[in-house]
Amino acid sequence: MFSTTTYQNRRNTLRENVPSGILLFMGNIENPINFEHNTYPFRQDSTFLYYFGLSVPSLVALIDVDENREIIFGNEATIDDLVWTGPQESISKKAERVGVREVRPMGELANYIKQAVTSDRTVHYLPAYQSANKLQLSELLQVNYNALTASAPFIRAVAAQRSIKEDQEIVEIERAVAVSTEMHLLAMRLAKQGMKESEVVSAVQAFAANKDCPLAYPPIITIHGQILHNQVRSNALKSGDMVLIDAGAETAMGYAGDLTRTFPVSAAFDSRQRAVYQIVLDALTAARAELRPGTSFKSVHLHAAKVLVEGLKGIGLMKGDTEEAVRAHAHTMFFQCGLGHLMGLDVHDMEDLGEQYVGYTDEEPKDTLTFGLKSLRLGKALEPGFVLTVEPGVYIIPELIDHCKANKQYLDFINYDELEKFRDFGGIRLEDNFLITPNGHQLLGPDLIKSIDDVENYRAQYV
Amino acid sequence: MFSTTTYQNRRNTLRENVPSGILLFMGNIENPINFEHNTYPFRQDSTFLYYFGLSVPSLVALIDVDENREIIFGNEATIDDLVWTGPQESISKKAERVGVREVRPMGELANYIKQAVTSDRTVHYLPAYQSANKLQLSELLQVNYNALTASAPFIRAVAAQRSIKEDQEIVEIERAVAVSTEMHLLAMRLAKQGMKESEVVSAVQAFAANKDCPLAYPPIITIHGQILHNQVRSNALKSGDMVLIDAGAETAMGYAGDLTRTFPVSAAFDSRQRAVYQIVLDALTAARAELRPGTSFKSVHLHAAKVLVEGLKGIGLMKGDTEEAVRAHAHTMFFQCGLGHLMGLDVHDMEDLGEQYVGYTDEEPKDTLTFGLKSLRLGKALEPGFVLTVEPGVYIIPELIDHCKANKQYLDFINYDELEKFRDFGGIRLEDNFLITPNGHQLLGPDLIKSIDDVENYRAQYV
Repeated sequence: MFSTTTYQNRRNTLRENVPSGILLFMGNIENPINFEHNTYPFRQDSTFLYYFGLSVPSLVALIDVDENREIIFGNEATIDDLVWTGPQESISKKAERVGVREVRPMGELANYIKQAVTSDRTVHYLPAYQSANKLQLSELLQVNYNALTASAPFIRAVAAQRSIKEDQEIVEIERAVAVSTEMHLLAMRLAKQGMKESEVVSAVQAFAANKDCPLAYPPIITIHGQILHNQVRSNALKSGDMVLIDAGAETAMGYAGDLTRTFPVSAAFDSRQRAVYQIVLDALTAARAELRPGTSFKSVHLHAAKVLVEGLKGIGLMKGDTEEAVRAHAHTMFFQCGLGHLMGLDVHDMEDLGEQYVGYTDEEPKDTLTFGLKSLRLGKALEPGFVLTVEPGVYIIPELIDHCKANKQYLDFINYDELEKFRDFGGIRLEDNFLITPNGHQLLGPDLIKSIDDVENYRAQYV
Repeated sequence: MFSTTTYQNRRNTLRENVPSGILLFMGNIENPINFEHNTYPFRQDSTFLYYFGLSVPSLVALIDVDENREIIFGNEATIDDLVWTGPQESISKKAERVGVREVRPMGELANYIKQAVTSDRTVHYLPAYQSANKLQLSELLQVNYNALTASAPFIRAVAAQRSIKEDQEIVEIERAVAVSTEMHLLAMRLAKQGMKESEVVSAVQAFAANKDCPLAYPPIITIHGQILHNQVRSNALKSGDMVLIDAGAETAMGYAGDLTRTFPVSAAFDSRQRAVYQIVLDALTAARAELRPGTSFKSVHLHAAKVLVEGLKGIGLMKGDTEEAVRAHAHTMFFQCGLGHLMGLDVHDMEDLGEQYVGYTDEEPKDTLTFGLKSLRLGKALEPGFVLTVEPGVYIIPELIDHCKANKQYLDFINYDELEKFRDFGGIRLEDNFLITPNGHQLLGPDLIKSIDDVENYRAQYV
């Protein structure tokens, strides 16, 4: 947990940016798996963590801007609870540490909100992503949950504040990236022909857990790297395959790391793998060089796309004019997603607040229709203090080839005959994490090996 | 997955028991962690699994008893989904394997239900434990979610059917218990002075994952066994401590195992630990001997309580008449919970349906007020085909001692002076899984070591 003044200062800044009404912060609950009391590991809501720091289930906090009050609502443990969970520090005691002196039973929240609503005061709340919070908000505000309307001023204020990372947050993120780096090295040492993907997942997860880090997201560890969010883990690794690992740790405070590497199951890449790997690496290097305040991330994305197209032309998979190909979105045959996203207390930072608010501006809104761009979570101009991922990739998706071919798409830019020879290629992604600095950018965490030589030399020791 | 006819037969039986209306089965969704698309591992609802077998998120199934139709509602993957998740077998294809020929887009469900409601037909549904399903039911039925009323006939029919395990289910449960047994042996080999509890958790979890088994519930691996559902895992094991491990695997089909052992960090128990361990083991042995059709589990629970009291009298912690002590609930100073619960597709089988329906009868309803009995999930007479846990324990909870002492409770039965000397003792629980057979009972899974000698001899090889 950060210092008491950290949380106080954050809340004070927020109040200045939303100068009237009540700001409501819905904490998360312990979510049931298959019955109420069998629950998933608890994860507090990130905005709640940012302003109130307490990783305790079933809390709601509010800042009453009009009346200058800060209250945390929650129920203290009873003697019965104690039998099941052991003695717990009281919520009041915990609240003190984040500078909140008023703690009240949850039962009093409804009345507080009701009085505010009857006095025509505005109750600001953020978009609810957990159904339990949709239910609770709907009940508190006496509004059908379909009619819940999050507060744009509140969202904008939170997004603006959380987007610019404090130095102490950077330290936490670097810690997350450092553990993530070790997870990747472990996987590179461990992965062997015949081993199952799930075994690598287990080892990586155990490693992080022993560093007191949960995983920031379900890890992707797969020989089918072309499936972007592959959660199948039942394949055995075999010689000739590549392993794509997209995995990151989360610190105890909730900050994420998010790294991807792709390496051969054999000691070395084959010639096709080597060629495509270098193209992806070139795109990452080129994109990284563009990272500086004022540059829009959409332009970095498109720049990376052009580098990919150039490379793919070089190995005969694409053809035609590079600029035109990217304008026609032909690169999305290979690179179907966005180049990266903000990262912080969420691996996709503040995705719950809405990508339009977090990653775009009113002047340049998100393209929600175009294949490829609609998956770009960040488009706007970069600012010092932004933390983000850069993660270009080349993914050969047989079903997408068939689909585009059947629809006669990109005929001027794709060499379908050559591409057919790559049907079984799989996918390669490389991903690093960066901080935008006043003059450019800074790689976060240790420099995890990435060049073909470094990866092959490392693997050669363990294969 | 079981055979097609298994699922057809189960549904046919159900229809006979709820002879009119529509039976609605709400599948589970992928639940968000900290934003919509960062999700916990998916776990299908157990009743959905029992009747429809498909472990696929965001499905709803129904049996229209009046019109003799069975439909699964769900949306097939699009080309866009395919990029992220890879090619998936269609829902229709999967539905065929469980004997359902009608699959419709989710969008058609609302209209189906609306028409049924307008025709005054009954729509039966089960209690929703996931908030997402409360929302969806509320929307489908146009009823405030607070006013949702699950169907008692539907609950009773499901509970009756799922309570009596089929032979093929027993095979699955034995598989879960077998993996659970190996998890416990691994922990007993691995646990060493200086190691953190979380390291043992990680190792056990990785072991199960490599057998393609998730854990059936968050494991308890703790040196503070007196905290019944302890989820703190940050302590280092030290010589003189006992480790309590309550952990079970779940098979790919969803069946659970649930075992508990307690063993010394050193090679041997100390004399106090040995004495209390033997008392708990005696209670387990005595309780087990009572397991047979017709015996109420509440009587087995009280029988175990008496054995505990006898033992605790033997070491000077309790006094007075054993029968009277149990009638006065004085044993709940040491044994605050229930002796066991049904087990199957849920580790607490069908807890979502309500304990009154699943574990009790109208004639002998659940005692929801008395400390101890209110945590007994199963009270009614046992029947052949029931699968259950037996898990007596002795837990020394300092805060409970102080609370009862201050309230002058159990003065005739507790030797508080002696008990004070045990304040720091911790807790011991032993738990096995049983099937009720026509003539008695059968231990499920391999016979995991349990006697003091066996545990000490096993530990001695690894300490």
